[in-house]
Amino acid sequence: MTKKVFQRILYGGDYNPNQWPEEVWSEDMRIFKEAAINSATINVFSWAKIQPSEEEYNFTELDKIIELLSKENYDIVLATSTAALPAWMFKKYPEVGRTDFEGRHHKFGQRHNACPNSLVYQKYASRLAGKLAERYGLNPHVKCWHINNEYGGECFCETCEKAFRVWLKERYGTIEAVNKAWNLEFWGHTVYEWDEIVLPNALSEGIDYENTAFAGISIDYRRFNSDSMLNNFKMEREAIRNFDQETPITTNLMGTYKLLDYFKWAKEMDIVSWDNYPSYNTPTSYSAMCHDLMRGLKDGQSFMLMEQTPSQQNWQPYNSLKRPGKMRAQSYQAIAHGADTVQFFQLRRSIGACEKFHGAVIEHVGTENTRVFREVAELGKELTTLGDSLLEAVSTNKVGIVFDWENYWGVEYTSGPNKDLKYVDQIHHYYEYFYKKNIPVDMISVDSDFSKYDLVVAPVLYMIKEQLAERLSEYVKNGGHMITTFMSGIVNESDNVYLGGYPGPLREMAGIWVEEIDALAPEQTNTIAFETGEEYECQLLCDIIHTEGAEVVAHYASDFYSDTPVITKNEFGKGTVWYNGTHVEAEGLKQFLDLVVSERSLTPIVEQAEGLEITKRMKNDKEFIFVLNNNKEIYDIPKKLVGKKNILTGKMITEKDTLAQFDVMIIE
Amino acid sequence: MTKKVFQRILYGGDYNPNQWPEEVWSEDMRIFKEAAINSATINVFSWAKIQPSEEEYNFTELDKIIELLSKENYDIVLATSTAALPAWMFKKYPEVGRTDFEGRHHKFGQRHNACPNSLVYQKYASRLAGKLAERYGLNPHVKCWHINNEYGGECFCETCEKAFRVWLKERYGTIEAVNKAWNLEFWGHTVYEWDEIVLPNALSEGIDYENTAFAGISIDYRRFNSDSMLNNFKMEREAIRNFDQETPITTNLMGTYKLLDYFKWAKEMDIVSWDNYPSYNTPTSYSAMCHDLMRGLKDGQSFMLMEQTPSQQNWQPYNSLKRPGKMRAQSYQAIAHGADTVQFFQLRRSIGACEKFHGAVIEHVGTENTRVFREVAELGKELTTLGDSLLEAVSTNKVGIVFDWENYWGVEYTSGPNKDLKYVDQIHHYYEYFYKKNIPVDMISVDSDFSKYDLVVAPVLYMIKEQLAERLSEYVKNGGHMITTFMSGIVNESDNVYLGGYPGPLREMAGIWVEEIDALAPEQTNTIAFETGEEYECQLLCDIIHTEGAEVVAHYASDFYSDTPVITKNEFGKGTVWYNGTHVEAEGLKQFLDLVVSERSLTPIVEQAEGLEITKRMKNDKEFIFVLNNNKEIYDIPKKLVGKKNILTGKMITEKDTLAQFDVMIIE
Amino acid sequence: MTKKVFQRILYGGDYNPNQWPEEVWSEDMRIFKEAAINSATINVFSWAKIQPSEEEYNFTELDKIIELLSKENYDIVLATSTAALPAWMFKKYPEVGRTDFEGRHHKFGQRHNACPNSLVYQKYASRLAGKLAERYGLNPHVKCWHINNEYGGECFCETCEKAFRVWLKERYGTIEAVNKAWNLEFWGHTVYEWDEIVLPNALSEGIDYENTAFAGISIDYRRFNSDSMLNNFKMEREAIRNFDQETPITTNLMGTYKLLDYFKWAKEMDIVSWDNYPSYNTPTSYSAMCHDLMRGLKDGQSFMLMEQTPSQQNWQPYNSLKRPGKMRAQSYQAIAHGADTVQFFQLRRSIGACEKFHGAVIEHVGTENTRVFREVAELGKELTTLGDSLLEAVSTNKVGIVFDWENYWGVEYTSGPNKDLKYVDQIHHYYEYFYKKNIPVDMISVDSDFSKYDLVVAPVLYMIKEQLAERLSEYVKNGGHMITTFMSGIVNESDNVYLGGYPGPLREMAGIWVEEIDALAPEQTNTIAFETGEEYECQLLCDIIHTEGAEVVAHYASDFYSDTPVITKNEFGKGTVWYNGTHVEAEGLKQFLDLVVSERSLTPIVEQAEGLEITKRMKNDKEFIFVLNNNKEIYDIPKKLVGKKNILTGKMITEKDTLAQFDVMIIE
Repeated sequence: MTKKVFQRILYGGDYNPNQWPEEVWSEDMRIFKEAAINSATINVFSWAKIQPSEEEYNFTELDKIIELLSKENYDIVLATSTAALPAWMFKKYPEVGRTDFEGRHHKFGQRHNACPNSLVYQKYASRLAGKLAERYGLNPHVKCWHINNEYGGECFCETCEKAFRVWLKERYGTIEAVNKAWNLEFWGHTVYEWDEIVLPNALSEGIDYENTAFAGISIDYRRFNSDSMLNNFKMEREAIRNFDQETPITTNLMGTYKLLDYFKWAKEMDIVSWDNYPSYNTPTSYSAMCHDLMRGLKDGQSFMLMEQTPSQQNWQPYNSLKRPGKMRAQSYQAIAHGADTVQFFQLRRSIGACEKFHGAVIEHVGTENTRVFREVAELGKELTTLGDSLLEAVSTNKVGIVFDWENYWGVEYTSGPNKDLKYVDQIHHYYEYFYKKNIPVDMISVDSDFSKYDLVVAPVLYMIKEQLAERLSEYVKNGGHMITTFMSGIVNESDNVYLGGYPGPLREMAGIWVEEIDALAPEQTNTIAFETGEEYECQLLCDIIHTEGAEVVAHYASDFYSDTPVITKNEFGKGTVWYNGTHVEAEGLKQFLDLVVSERSLTPIVEQAEGLEITKRMKNDKEFIFVLNNNKEIYDIPKKLVGKKNILTGKMITEKDTLAQFDVMIIE
Repeated sequence: MTKKVFQRILYGGDYNPNQWPEEVWSEDMRIFKEAAINSATINVFSWAKIQPSEEEYNFTELDKIIELLSKENYDIVLATSTAALPAWMFKKYPEVGRTDFEGRHHKFGQRHNACPNSLVYQKYASRLAGKLAERYGLNPHVKCWHINNEYGGECFCETCEKAFRVWLKERYGTIEAVNKAWNLEFWGHTVYEWDEIVLPNALSEGIDYENTAFAGISIDYRRFNSDSMLNNFKMEREAIRNFDQETPITTNLMGTYKLLDYFKWAKEMDIVSWDNYPSYNTPTSYSAMCHDLMRGLKDGQSFMLMEQTPSQQNWQPYNSLKRPGKMRAQSYQAIAHGADTVQFFQLRRSIGACEKFHGAVIEHVGTENTRVFREVAELGKELTTLGDSLLEAVSTNKVGIVFDWENYWGVEYTSGPNKDLKYVDQIHHYYEYFYKKNIPVDMISVDSDFSKYDLVVAPVLYMIKEQLAERLSEYVKNGGHMITTFMSGIVNESDNVYLGGYPGPLREMAGIWVEEIDALAPEQTNTIAFETGEEYECQLLCDIIHTEGAEVVAHYASDFYSDTPVITKNEFGKGTVWYNGTHVEAEGLKQFLDLVVSERSLTPIVEQAEGLEITKRMKNDKEFIFVLNNNKEIYDIPKKLVGKKNILTGKMITEKDTLAQFDVMIIE
Repeated sequence: MTKKVFQRILYGGDYNPNQWPEEVWSEDMRIFKEAAINSATINVFSWAKIQPSEEEYNFTELDKIIELLSKENYDIVLATSTAALPAWMFKKYPEVGRTDFEGRHHKFGQRHNACPNSLVYQKYASRLAGKLAERYGLNPHVKCWHINNEYGGECFCETCEKAFRVWLKERYGTIEAVNKAWNLEFWGHTVYEWDEIVLPNALSEGIDYENTAFAGISIDYRRFNSDSMLNNFKMEREAIRNFDQETPITTNLMGTYKLLDYFKWAKEMDIVSWDNYPSYNTPTSYSAMCHDLMRGLKDGQSFMLMEQTPSQQNWQPYNSLKRPGKMRAQSYQAIAHGADTVQFFQLRRSIGACEKFHGAVIEHVGTENTRVFREVAELGKELTTLGDSLLEAVSTNKVGIVFDWENYWGVEYTSGPNKDLKYVDQIHHYYEYFYKKNIPVDMISVDSDFSKYDLVVAPVLYMIKEQLAERLSEYVKNGGHMITTFMSGIVNESDNVYLGGYPGPLREMAGIWVEEIDALAPEQTNTIAFETGEEYECQLLCDIIHTEGAEVVAHYASDFYSDTPVITKNEFGKGTVWYNGTHVEAEGLKQFLDLVVSERSLTPIVEQAEGLEITKRMKNDKEFIFVLNNNKEIYDIPKKLVGKKNILTGKMITEKDTLAQFDVMIIE
């Protein structure tokens, strides 16, 4: 099955013209053209419109929209509209709605409101997807299917409880295996029949939404819920494929969104797409990490930036305007990290309901005479000049940072030692180092082929699933290099501890034994001292380490474990395992990682470019270097780039050129 | 129908003698007389006492109390007791209780616990009001009916849901109109049948109590709930009027209480009454604003101070004692702003239950030998000397500040741009300026006759309901002057945005176009610079403004919109519209408003009296000037007042007189 | 009925071998011996294991464990396993679970999950206890029965509601008495039939979990809930006693745990046991107070330290390791205050579920080669040398501090004057003074024999139950001395105020009248000045006091009640009553209590030993002095102790000896 591919950078976004009369539509078309917009995502929330009752379907309006867009040669991203249920369905089949963690069954309202295991939902959602595919799937302007929208949330209803038991039977086979997996002997929770298992929410094992009495069942419920929604996705996908075998199918993801295991999801998607909504104070390194993660989901394949706002959000506490140039810089950041599309939510602002203050290409004023529009239009023209030159370009990186959703769930469900340990922050702490160094990284899964990397960084690798330890060991033995940290190698996939000493299956590789894990309250710190003398503050957690072959790189400098190792390095086979036993401040982490990086001869894309964000993509042997300035400082051009061509301007870069805030260069 | 009027300042308060044996009652009478107390509010929470079961009524005790009070010549404020249901009613008719926002149906307990749409409640509440009126309505000592008590809260039960649909049919006529009003096409929430509409709570459109996915339905539910309770009030009022056509009817309001549209309520009340409970740290300007608002509800008609505490509350986090003189100063503040009564909650302290630590005229010690009692008694004697001289006195003010409940709901339901925007704080920010200047203002509604005012101040006039824009435009054209601010002119009464550029229907009048609205996080500020050079800090929200005829009064001094206008002035017809695009610190607001005030020649009641609170009331061509000192500083007498008579002392004011904290003068 | 007594300090803890294969058990036995562990608490959470269905019991595994432990001569603490329900019981009898304060009925999950009034629970819990007693009660190694585990929580289900009404009938006899007790006339809550009474939760009188509209009903519900669980305890106890009349029976308590009236519970227990879990920042004085309270529960009888962690907890926000020596010091602190056992939770760490990061004697590494194990082992050997020398030793103290659970409930349910008033903090404020002085105290109940004490300290004795005032008065008249404070003498046992002036029934004894109670917000303070000139800061609450015979010890130094009394002293009969009208900083409290202590000639166990914790126990005329250093400072040996024998080392103490942090001496 060969999929259609994009012919140009999709530049457009969500268009929901239902709220306005048709005369507005044609004016919209004119304005979009002014901005070199070439695509529209449509039909995201129109189920009730298309299917006004159980018996009727009515495509009149959608026909018109698609006809109009097709006529004007827009690329269409066609959504299936299944992320918000029609009111009539709730009235007729109340069980179609979700029950929340508190055990309350919901009535009609909001969105992401369908129980993923509801047969009613499944029947009508796949029927709708099928009807859309039958009607529009062969329209050549339809370039992508967009199933549902921002899948998310959880359901805790009786239907799910029953489906969960079925899922468990498939996973575990016997009730004894369940008892063992969840260690149910603890507190005498042993079950003897499948229907003694109740789903974990506030009325059972859930202590509160963040905490649980039995991590085993709660992690499995997360898996089950993620799978249930993925089944919804697959079900719609199959319905589409009955009529359309060629158009790529996606659903829009949300970066590090916790509840869905995106690596598992991405396997089922033709192309990854995602929605990027940084806050006014989100570090640019965090956005970069998310982009890299989205690229990593399908092993480096380029992705769609499905949503960003042209300027302002509405749902954040403080919805700053994007300063002039910021939206452009953010758009190029996406491309620099692997995006093939730049799409906005939204093309035109709603007049009412909760997103009415969310930015749009066409604001409430209704004209093109706005700063925001002008920036959108300038970018549109620029992207047009890029043509297809960057589409499907790739990166080849030497460093992989491991991100694992099940581990994320496990780490944050664990009771103790320190409630402030947050998985994504730990990953970002390491990512940020490489980002600032302009050493490009891939975000990889625990199932990735490690052998592609010189260095694998796996902070807080708490949960070691089957084969993972072996695969890591093999990787290092064969000459790979790896960094890991405190709270790694602790539990198996059921959150049961590996007995015999931390870091469990990583102990031999790391050449250390962690005897104790101290937890520091926010007002407490320790100090780490490198063997070369430098000292840095550390906090959060402090492993007390015994070397078992490893070399000591740094030790603690205070408390009763003063002088014991904190950072260690162990030769293992042909490779090396580095272990960091604490959360050290960024400067200290820099000293540690500088050491690793210099040993491994990992180099920045461009040297001496501190402060700039620099990435590289390759296509057909052509190399494109992206240079962004996200800071207020004005930077000189790194020498290595002088004399090369900036394809955004078509000009050669001279020594006198500088980069002001939000300036971007793409250098061929 | 001519209403009875008060013959003297009602001085007394809530009296609930049921908790004590009758011998205590006569001792109470003696003590009240010591304090010159002349009235009592009774029967506020006695339903279960009066109606011990569905079949029986028993007025024995109430008869005795009324007889006793009548004999002693007290003015009686007779409550109808319907604010807390009898336990038997809950047992027999559980549906009479409320369902809360979380969807939980409540059992017997607390108060304000009746579903306003319960037919059971309606039947028995109106029957009780009728029986009371039949029995006591013609007693000449009954000077006022007090229906229910502090109406408030909301119900989200099925009965209300059904009633809501009926209310909607009346408001909108067709289901299409509902879809349009609430912009239900957004997120595909289109409804086709009335019974597809579910009320907005935590189980449907309510995100949490403060936030909603669809402001349209949530604002309408607020309207519906306010109307439902108002119907309860009217129903009791009608039941009373069957037997008593003369005694004025009120219910006690609560200042800026959010959930009920008091301007609509006041139309149905003969006299406004309210409960004033400042905290230890409530600014006096805030209390003054509330008094003015209560006076404004019936267009300047004097009101009742139904409740205040003699000294201490119980339900605040920190229930400070009122310092000596403070209760007196607060009482005169009420009178200065339009009160005809000074009533306490409560005359005698309860021995048990949650208000037992709430202050009272007779404390738990049971005697008149307390500081609090002495202060009450001194005030009582003073008020006696005032006789009816101040009753129904009026004020005529040149400045009107607009307060609108529906706008209040709309502003605070809106998602974005800045969650910290609070409507009442914004109103108070402007009120405080005039208060400190001693320029008296009226708090007015959007339906008020603007032509009575030289200056209409309408901060955050987010919701512009039908005809309002025309009426404001007419007002200004004819020579009126108006101030408005950021987040004005944004939506219609259904919370749908006026397209075509902010501030929508006010754009032409204001002579500006607001292109963007920046939101500042708490740690961020901008600066505004007057054209005359002075600079002030601003925060929260910053409109980015283009003048369209308006003159620039001040501009921003930083960020990318530095040098663009922030305060503008536009001549429109014979009048002027001033617009302030940000939340500026008080000193900056002062500079702006000083300009307006000086242009309009609005003058303080007394010049050079900064620090004192000065108001004026008039009766039969007599002018009474109230002077209060709420501060620790000791002030000289403003010159203008020297030589006039302080009717509280009967003495002429000399140059040597001063005002210490809590001192009060009423100058004729 | 003569109870078996312990022959040695029980040193061991919770052992839950079910999670591991039997080969691990024998290795465990070996390791325990290494640590001189001599006892194990078993079967705490095994109900589902022992009773896999309604019809079957299966003791196979428990038989093996008991056989193994018996063979190895361990003392066994045998738990009844009834603190967590089997899953099958929930499935079959859903009503066996609890309904929470929010009104939500729970499903299977967590622990402490049985409705105490469920007949199903009662039937099967007592049957299980009986079967265990029948099978193991005569085993001589079984030294103690441990019923349930950490009884706690509350149930608000319909079964409880009905049982509550029965409990009320027994307590009050008539519905009129209930109306009076709860002052239900307030807000017209009068009830006429028993079934009009609904239990107080979030759906009725409960404002939120901490606050109530009617303290009377909420306090009674606390009593009822405490009694209901106590009935569960007694029911199991009786079931055991059918087969075993000799083995002492306990359940593990939790210090100042709020919900259960432990003084009432202790009457039904043969020996008190409790679980001590200080946080990293819990003051040692607080732990000491809890130990003294546990000793006080049975009037000085020594108690069991049933649980402490060898090093780390898991459920606190920040679970610090216990520094080297700290666990030993904490163990001796327990013994110093009256413990006869030192038991850990747990002997071996769980591999999964929420306590997997809770410290244990055998950590996840599974060996004895850990710091924690070595410390456990060293302590074990030390305790072995002590033999039975300290078992059942007693203390005779001159100071009693009153602690009362019903008062605790009353104080914290009260609405006003200051929400920050916390009962336990107030008790600790006074306790800490004596602790730092090394003047030993008993924690006593309101029913204790006061005549045994020179000084009775009763801070915030808000609720004065029947006879208490008379008993205190008698005590003082006969030469006793008493300290009490603000918020004392306010209400009777139903939370109804004593009319006639605060502190009600204590007024005459104290020789004062409290006219008003000022509440200070956190940012406010007042100053107290001793008549001798020293000044200290005070806050929270300030009584305004008139002396009625009392002498003034200190007065306020600011605000309108400046110069009025704050600390007073009244001779009453042959004794004295001291009254402190505010919360004064520790230094000020010290000055006040130094005065009292010096007047009463109360002396420290050892003089000039500031910084050390010193207590004394006596057995058969032998006196044991315990000296602990909890601080970082190194202290010299108090002179008085030089030349005596430290039984832990067997050596005489010399002048040159010092005490470093966590050092302990037991001096004979």
